[in-house]
Amino acid sequence: MEILKVSSKSLPNSVAGAIAGIIREEGCVEVQAVGAGATNQAVKSVAVARNYLEEDCEIVCVPYFANVEIDGESRTAIRLVVKKQ
Amino acid sequence: MEILKVSSKSLPNSVAGAIAGIIREEGCVEVQAVGAGATNQAVKSVAVARNYLEEDCEIVCVPYFANVEIDGESRTAIRLVVKKQ
Repeated sequence: MEILKVSSKSLPNSVAGAIAGIIREEGCVEVQAVGAGATNQAVKSVAVARNYLEEDCEIVCVPYFANVEIDGESRTAIRLVVKKQ
Repeated sequence: MEILKVSSKSLPNSVAGAIAGIIREEGCVEVQAVGAGATNQAVKSVAVARNYLEEDCEIVCVPYFANVEIDGESRTAIRLVVKKQ
């Protein structure tokens, strides 16, 4: 599954456009965020993507914790599996 | 639908326990967060609740924006509809 990495500086409208495009093509996508600011942008992006897709399909998300390595350090990321309902 | 209000100081394990309890009783619950820190705790709470419920059911969440009034000021909240898949 494709993984979109979101930071605290990501623009929700842009990420939402990417989510909507991948959902239309593939039916599901993962969004990864590390830290509170990034997680906030990720959730807002899914909320916006829901609006972008409202005429096509309903989407839901499933959050889970994932261990990722960033610059040689182990961090806990939040991943959101976004998929058609 | 019952609404759980989450702040940046909420403990994900405690909120997750509340989510799991309401999901078992009612099948769905809303989680409301205002601000990045609160939204982060809300998403972590859903991820933990998923683990608490894994032997019973799979849960998904649907994020949306809601206008709420806090201390007389209008704020944009993130609400997560959490429901059985």
